[in-house]
Amino acid sequence: MKVSIIIIGDELLLGQVTDTNSGYIARHIAPYGWNVADIQTVSDSAEAIRCAINRAFQTSQIVLTTGGLGPTKDDITKAVLCDYFGGEMVENIQVLQNIKNIAKSRGFRLNRLTAAQAMVPSSARIIQNRVGTAPIMWFEQPESDRTLVAMPGVPFETQEMFSTEVFPAMLRKYDSSTIVCHHTIMVEGITESDLAEHLADWETALPRNFHLAYLPCPGYIRLRLDGIGNDKSKIESQLSRHIKQLKDLCGDKLLYDGDKKLAEILLDALFERHLTIGSAESCTGGNIAHQLTLIPGSSAAMKGAIVAYSNEVKTNVLGVSSDTISTFGAVSEPVVDLMVEGAQRVLDCNVAIATSGIAGPSGGSAEKPVGTVCISAACKSSILTRTFHFPGNRQRVIERATNTAMIMAIRLIQSFFQV
Amino acid sequence: MKVSIIIIGDELLLGQVTDTNSGYIARHIAPYGWNVADIQTVSDSAEAIRCAINRAFQTSQIVLTTGGLGPTKDDITKAVLCDYFGGEMVENIQVLQNIKNIAKSRGFRLNRLTAAQAMVPSSARIIQNRVGTAPIMWFEQPESDRTLVAMPGVPFETQEMFSTEVFPAMLRKYDSSTIVCHHTIMVEGITESDLAEHLADWETALPRNFHLAYLPCPGYIRLRLDGIGNDKSKIESQLSRHIKQLKDLCGDKLLYDGDKKLAEILLDALFERHLTIGSAESCTGGNIAHQLTLIPGSSAAMKGAIVAYSNEVKTNVLGVSSDTISTFGAVSEPVVDLMVEGAQRVLDCNVAIATSGIAGPSGGSAEKPVGTVCISAACKSSILTRTFHFPGNRQRVIERATNTAMIMAIRLIQSFFQV
Repeated sequence: MKVSIIIIGDELLLGQVTDTNSGYIARHIAPYGWNVADIQTVSDSAEAIRCAINRAFQTSQIVLTTGGLGPTKDDITKAVLCDYFGGEMVENIQVLQNIKNIAKSRGFRLNRLTAAQAMVPSSARIIQNRVGTAPIMWFEQPESDRTLVAMPGVPFETQEMFSTEVFPAMLRKYDSSTIVCHHTIMVEGITESDLAEHLADWETALPRNFHLAYLPCPGYIRLRLDGIGNDKSKIESQLSRHIKQLKDLCGDKLLYDGDKKLAEILLDALFERHLTIGSAESCTGGNIAHQLTLIPGSSAAMKGAIVAYSNEVKTNVLGVSSDTISTFGAVSEPVVDLMVEGAQRVLDCNVAIATSGIAGPSGGSAEKPVGTVCISAACKSSILTRTFHFPGNRQRVIERATNTAMIMAIRLIQSFFQV
Repeated sequence: MKVSIIIIGDELLLGQVTDTNSGYIARHIAPYGWNVADIQTVSDSAEAIRCAINRAFQTSQIVLTTGGLGPTKDDITKAVLCDYFGGEMVENIQVLQNIKNIAKSRGFRLNRLTAAQAMVPSSARIIQNRVGTAPIMWFEQPESDRTLVAMPGVPFETQEMFSTEVFPAMLRKYDSSTIVCHHTIMVEGITESDLAEHLADWETALPRNFHLAYLPCPGYIRLRLDGIGNDKSKIESQLSRHIKQLKDLCGDKLLYDGDKKLAEILLDALFERHLTIGSAESCTGGNIAHQLTLIPGSSAAMKGAIVAYSNEVKTNVLGVSSDTISTFGAVSEPVVDLMVEGAQRVLDCNVAIATSGIAGPSGGSAEKPVGTVCISAACKSSILTRTFHFPGNRQRVIERATNTAMIMAIRLIQSFFQV
């Protein structure tokens, strides 16, 4: 089943907001064998929206729109849809009640503009928005079996309502017999093109209904194998055979058999072995701790972090001697070794990670250019320390250092502790 | 001047990668009065790419594509463009040399697939990619004065090369006399719909060539006013008059006259007053420190952070008495007050921020539901402490708490220190 998505909003074409809804929708529908055929991002203009709907219906029976349903003047999607599908604007009592309930629970005053969100096209079936004030509208063209569903643009609302209400209703209406299976593995320590060359013969020999996608991430590569067909058990058994071959070909470059955030892989490795972790971060500035604590339940292993951005904090809190800093420089292996020891001691954790580097754009030298990062990972008394030269701008260096530090901790735990 | 963007790649339609290139391009061209008319995201399929090019040329004279230029089998953009614009695939010596140089400087081996990136359509003018191996291809249809430029999809490469080479070349070719001016202000402490109601009369009275956009962010709202015309000085003086009125209408809800990241506003406020900052973070888990250290030059004010995720770290590192934690709970105003004092002492900073809350999904209670967050901001001996109830999932609560903590610090500094 193919779905076309239309993202509506000048703010997206001005680059003021990044669309994350279409990616969410795509990931959510893929396991059911549904896929997003195309995405159009258009302005808050009646003509652009109408054109986009016409084009989308040429490709797909199902069209999803997000955005342009807010209370402010620039949001016109509702009026355009009323014009496109017919009917007139009518007040919906249930929507008005929902808006009143939300206003009450969030402690905001119900003003004229918010109340106007209860006006909806009479041609739409309404799905109550449990988490926001803009209602979701379901339009049908029965003669062509086409459906368009208009959802708000706020990612939290779209994603919550799409997964719990909109998609289940679509599945009930359009059942599909096509089965798509896929499996992703994560690989590190090899470049994308070396990996592609290494896998070329195997990839060419894959059956025509199987397809391998390379998804490079900072510090690692995700490999996703998709298989398509009508016989679920046959596709599944083919997929598991090909994945086994792929894993064998990747050898010790295989980081993880599955598709997870690095922080989750690291936390799972800690949970399984009843270990705790902490970080001592200079150039990553707290991002390792942030990535770990974004994961629900991380508090079972994560003790905390010392973001030692200034040398004073490295010395006073982590106990890195100022002699070591002045002899080797703050960005050096001896310093990250002392930082990682300090983190283990101060945070009382079994595993620790430490980073110190030059994220740029300034601060580089001939000897230690921008992108130089020293990372140390320690498991009880065992320490792994390395110096890297990462390409890219400040944000990219920070992200790459964060991921590499987590990968080093995962590798160290894997080699050190058997489950 | 209108530009249409085509994002090519199955990984985007599968939701495995989020497009950030189109937003970058839009923000980059806006100050020149250029705008993105639409964005199409299509699969790595010859037919989809061809259709998208035809549609894009219906809207815009200039089409930019990103993606599908990698060394792996699934990348077919180059072949499709060669077919579309004519010519044949030829080896480009300069591109090959560039690939060899990059391979050498990054220490990777030049394999067959990477070397194949030097094959380019003879109909294209080549712009060397200084930061990656995939060349940029510039195609023209002189009879219709149309241009298509194909760029790689890796954000770092696209963004670097677009701003330094591709866009300057476009400006030279297509000069435009239309002037667009815009100015953004940031507002906090009011909901979007209350603000819209408050501004409604003023907004309706704006001249037709002016347009106000509401851009809600977690914890604040950005208001962007655009003016369009042919006379630059006239548009600029109108814009500055309207912005003055808008700021007066916003009153004490105005957070910042301009458009900056919260972390930058906070750091600038610190730099101007020669102050230092540190954070003590429980529920935000290092994200405040991460946001601050993402900003180049932050080390001049940022001392560091204690991520006190466990109660042990709150007590042992920050000196929060375990009696206070057991009496009031870890998520309480007395605890964040002690955390903020601890941060000032341990990190030796003038300004400190502390957070403790329940980010969810578990850990809530009737008295302190998920979303409850206590935040304290301190400037020397002055402390501001508040308890919030933020809606949304874990990531949203963390983001909202991070922003709110930074806003509290900005407000405290503004009220406490005159520049």
